[in-house]
Amino acid sequence: MPPFTRLRSESVAALGEEALIAAIRRWLGTASPPAPYGIGDDCAVLPPGRGRQLLTIDPVIYGRHFDAKADPRAVGAKLLKRNLSDLAAMGGRPVAAVVALTLDATVSLAWLQGFYRGLALTARRYGVPVVGGDVAQAEGALAASLALLGAAGPRVLRRTGARLGDAIYVTGSLGDSVRRGHHFTFAPRLAEGAWLARQPAVRAMMDVSDGLAKDLHALTPAGGEASIRAAALPRRPGASLASALGEGEDYELVFALAASADAGAFARAWRRAFPRVRLSRIGAFTAAGARPAAALRLADFRGYEHLRS
Amino acid sequence: MPPFTRLRSESVAALGEEALIAAIRRWLGTASPPAPYGIGDDCAVLPPGRGRQLLTIDPVIYGRHFDAKADPRAVGAKLLKRNLSDLAAMGGRPVAAVVALTLDATVSLAWLQGFYRGLALTARRYGVPVVGGDVAQAEGALAASLALLGAAGPRVLRRTGARLGDAIYVTGSLGDSVRRGHHFTFAPRLAEGAWLARQPAVRAMMDVSDGLAKDLHALTPAGGEASIRAAALPRRPGASLASALGEGEDYELVFALAASADAGAFARAWRRAFPRVRLSRIGAFTAAGARPAAALRLADFRGYEHLRS
Repeated sequence: MPPFTRLRSESVAALGEEALIAAIRRWLGTASPPAPYGIGDDCAVLPPGRGRQLLTIDPVIYGRHFDAKADPRAVGAKLLKRNLSDLAAMGGRPVAAVVALTLDATVSLAWLQGFYRGLALTARRYGVPVVGGDVAQAEGALAASLALLGAAGPRVLRRTGARLGDAIYVTGSLGDSVRRGHHFTFAPRLAEGAWLARQPAVRAMMDVSDGLAKDLHALTPAGGEASIRAAALPRRPGASLASALGEGEDYELVFALAASADAGAFARAWRRAFPRVRLSRIGAFTAAGARPAAALRLADFRGYEHLRS
Repeated sequence: MPPFTRLRSESVAALGEEALIAAIRRWLGTASPPAPYGIGDDCAVLPPGRGRQLLTIDPVIYGRHFDAKADPRAVGAKLLKRNLSDLAAMGGRPVAAVVALTLDATVSLAWLQGFYRGLALTARRYGVPVVGGDVAQAEGALAASLALLGAAGPRVLRRTGARLGDAIYVTGSLGDSVRRGHHFTFAPRLAEGAWLARQPAVRAMMDVSDGLAKDLHALTPAGGEASIRAAALPRRPGASLASALGEGEDYELVFALAASADAGAFARAWRRAFPRVRLSRIGAFTAAGARPAAALRLADFRGYEHLRS
């Protein structure tokens, strides 16, 4: 659906700010709780956080993360799910979200309603109240940043912590995310992330958003490199190796399992917990320079890097 | 300083994402703590929040909140201070911030360095660690959204709570904020906000960001209206009444004091606590339709409303 309209009566300019904010609250519905926890004050008021907390922020931007063909409900859902995926990567669960919307006065009300309804649906599904935000006008713009506060589990899995010899696993399948619409339809791996954080043998984790080849770099211990077997990579049907390694927007979890762990028992425990979610052992962290001949040269499949032309 | 450059070597495109993020961490310096609390993972990890928490988000956008003439350090400072002002309005103190940056590949490194150094200086001054963020490229854009997590004091002052008869006060001076550069140089009223929240006779509060006439509307109890005496309005030297009431970006606090309170004792306590900060009693909430003849018709001075053309 095209986000912009030439008809003033169908655009956000027809409402003005106060009426627009009232419309947003209506569109969010039960996804936005009543005050004091919800929209309508200078800040949202939240209950105390008992354990450690997590905080992340990610945007969706017209022309970058979605285009005029995208379903606005999918764009709103993606905004929240991108952030939920970051939370999943550390084993956390969501607490509350705030959204800063930037838009041109010609943005269509129908588009915006779809966007917030999609956000609300996803917020209800994952139990994340949308407690506040901001609306600002800017010429030619249509973008939203969502900040997500989360609660950490008893153990926080970080990107650092893997050791040489650790096995590398990835959830789900990789590649062709944009062509297949996976970047809109994915389910953030919250339950899986929380479960993995409770396994002492899992040492480090992150989500695959910029492409496995690039993201793995951040997980690799000093003096090591990731040795990945092409045949072990769980590719989406029809996805090329280059897409599976470099396209990104997979929103799967990649993690390191201690070399000393019982891989068979781990795989069985996974299948009991998540019988329908594929888990693939794709390689291991080896000493730099000691990569087996059969392993991929990941540098050839560098993931998406912003700002490079 | 112009934010964009035609010279690739002087632009963010010369760095690429990884080097840019490394540069941002360098520019933030001690304002960004080391992991696990800082930049570099999927989420920032924060300590438990003992009491109630506050969460807010506000952007700065090129063409809306700043232009090519602005000092980038002032823009970075303003991004944080806008959010601090929201926190001040509820009597809270800051805990941590995350920043989502959206920029064109032609944004100049010198500008961006100034922006982050200004943000870092302000973050250190107010004790707010910048613990994470995101960098995304988008054509023609330069904007940043900052989400601020705060700790509430024992009492949270909200916009609702004023009653008919309550006196209306405002801190500092109003008007001419843009011409005077006040929208960049202001100090968010954190200490004042926390103090006011501890006074039981203060019933409701907000910050003046969209213009007093509009903002007061949100503070007005049902069935009432704000009766303001023009002569009592603390105007910045040279500021017109229209600017003081409608321009906005004042970042002062406006609040309601219970009619039963001892106004003299309150004023003396204020002067002891904040001898250098002006406090003005500007009017009272009267029953709708019972506004004294001498009081201003605020509807004539509607504050800045986004999206209206």
